[in-house]
Amino acid sequence: MTAIHAYAATKPGGPFEPFDYDAGEVGPDDVEIKVESCGICHSDLSMLDNEWQITQFPFVGGHEVVGHVVALGQHALGLAEGDLVGLGWTSRSCMHCDECLSGNQNLCVSVQGTITHQHGGFADRVRCHWGWATRIPEGVDPASAGPLLCGGVTVFSPLVQHNLSPTAKVAVVGIGGLGHMALQFCRAWGCEVTAISRGRSKEDEARKLGANHFVATEEDANLKNVNGKFDLILNTTDAALPWDAYIAALAPRGVLHTVGAADKVEASVPPMIAGQKSFSSSPIGSIVATRTMLDFAARHKIAPMTEVHAMSDINEAFEELRNGSPRYRLVLMA
Amino acid sequence: MTAIHAYAATKPGGPFEPFDYDAGEVGPDDVEIKVESCGICHSDLSMLDNEWQITQFPFVGGHEVVGHVVALGQHALGLAEGDLVGLGWTSRSCMHCDECLSGNQNLCVSVQGTITHQHGGFADRVRCHWGWATRIPEGVDPASAGPLLCGGVTVFSPLVQHNLSPTAKVAVVGIGGLGHMALQFCRAWGCEVTAISRGRSKEDEARKLGANHFVATEEDANLKNVNGKFDLILNTTDAALPWDAYIAALAPRGVLHTVGAADKVEASVPPMIAGQKSFSSSPIGSIVATRTMLDFAARHKIAPMTEVHAMSDINEAFEELRNGSPRYRLVLMA
Repeated sequence: MTAIHAYAATKPGGPFEPFDYDAGEVGPDDVEIKVESCGICHSDLSMLDNEWQITQFPFVGGHEVVGHVVALGQHALGLAEGDLVGLGWTSRSCMHCDECLSGNQNLCVSVQGTITHQHGGFADRVRCHWGWATRIPEGVDPASAGPLLCGGVTVFSPLVQHNLSPTAKVAVVGIGGLGHMALQFCRAWGCEVTAISRGRSKEDEARKLGANHFVATEEDANLKNVNGKFDLILNTTDAALPWDAYIAALAPRGVLHTVGAADKVEASVPPMIAGQKSFSSSPIGSIVATRTMLDFAARHKIAPMTEVHAMSDINEAFEELRNGSPRYRLVLMA
Repeated sequence: MTAIHAYAATKPGGPFEPFDYDAGEVGPDDVEIKVESCGICHSDLSMLDNEWQITQFPFVGGHEVVGHVVALGQHALGLAEGDLVGLGWTSRSCMHCDECLSGNQNLCVSVQGTITHQHGGFADRVRCHWGWATRIPEGVDPASAGPLLCGGVTVFSPLVQHNLSPTAKVAVVGIGGLGHMALQFCRAWGCEVTAISRGRSKEDEARKLGANHFVATEEDANLKNVNGKFDLILNTTDAALPWDAYIAALAPRGVLHTVGAADKVEASVPPMIAGQKSFSSSPIGSIVATRTMLDFAARHKIAPMTEVHAMSDINEAFEELRNGSPRYRLVLMA
């Protein structure tokens, strides 16, 4: 095998520098993907900074990969050389535990991440288990598809999980990398969609992306104007929200669902009981959720808004992510 | 109309004394029930003590009524004089809002309680809207049925709400008035049932009531021995649980459901996200949940364990509830 040419940080905070490594033989269940593009997720920055104390250096980030299959292990199923595939946060799961075999591979206790258990997609090639390489369907733009594989399926999966009705009133909290995709999915799902953001700077864009209504929390911090309204509130932020206010904004039987990892949730129980309300959560999606999400995105022409950089400009791109507010996702092109 | 002969407390803490009142004409949608028996719920004691600051004195408690219909308003539907019916926490709902018309009358914002908005069942007769008088099916013992109408449907309703599978592993937290009925329902539902209690004093009884397993939290406060086990944890206590330990005791996709009104829940979000776990809640059940619960109880011979007192011994019964630990529900016979 030839070496994989990657960009790695050798210490917390970076910078990324050219880094070659030998990935060895392609494992029997693995595929190797030639990277055409790779998005940058905020979690790449968290990992770069070793924020979660799990980063191994040299660190090769990148888990929003789009590229072509260039090699397959002898037991790899359902794919062929040349297939255009995407790879997200998860690169492997055991495929034989109850969660894997019931279609919830994302909840496998032996799950491995593309940038946590191996070297990621800021490289010319990357490896994963065949199951986690998802074919990109026609109708999805490969150049901007990367973020769908991570943030996209993360906000799509709760709609499936809750078997959300298109008649539902849904709020999306946080109009950023995840939220701007959530607005599109919820609108295409047929729902009445409200965007909730701090100020009004993103209002016009949010409405174009699918929001029917817009709430600025700097004007209505406790959501009094939307009290009792929502069947589902999808929180994409990791902020310590005023939880009771968000519970109060739910309709009876409403669900406050978070994909953003605040440290903790703290809510009064009696109002939850009275309205039969609940608080739920989810991580990245399963294999089939990812496939379904891509098909849905193709059919409804849903795509992240991206800013494109050359892979060789990786450090400039990370500076932009660290300092600014990209609208909304950064993508590195090989 | 002749006066209704009741027992009322004229001040917080009691005692109850004979109290006659004129309920006026039977309203067009109302039924009048001749009380044969009435259970005593812990919330009767809370209301007696004005713990929630909503009690109106003179206070007539009692919301676990079993008795015969003796009068019907001209618009009362589905019932006839002489029918044996039960009446629980709720006595009225508007019957025309979305929640009422979608079968969730318990979530109606205009809902009225049997002891919060009118005089209750510690009396020879009591009134309610026809919808909230539920016919007692054959196979349910009328003398002990009262507690089913309140605590029974409260713990039964979550099984319906979550469309619980009989293959599920369920834990019932708190083996008291509610918990001892929950054990029976969950066992009859086909589930693998674990009782969680402080000590082992109720272990034998819990096993007879349906528990396959028993956990004493004074031996294993953080539930380490049942880590990752439960699909549903049904909390019947109002204690401030070690929430993170209970979340950790859930299997992936598990639900921690509370019907006990702790002041607040406080839980770490990241482990919830990783396991796609949720926290849900519910109040008393709907009209059809109550009917369904009674049919299920009849078919599976589920009944609360009761201690019977004469209605005239109401003050002695309340003393027992206040000081002791009835196993498990007190019932006053007319």
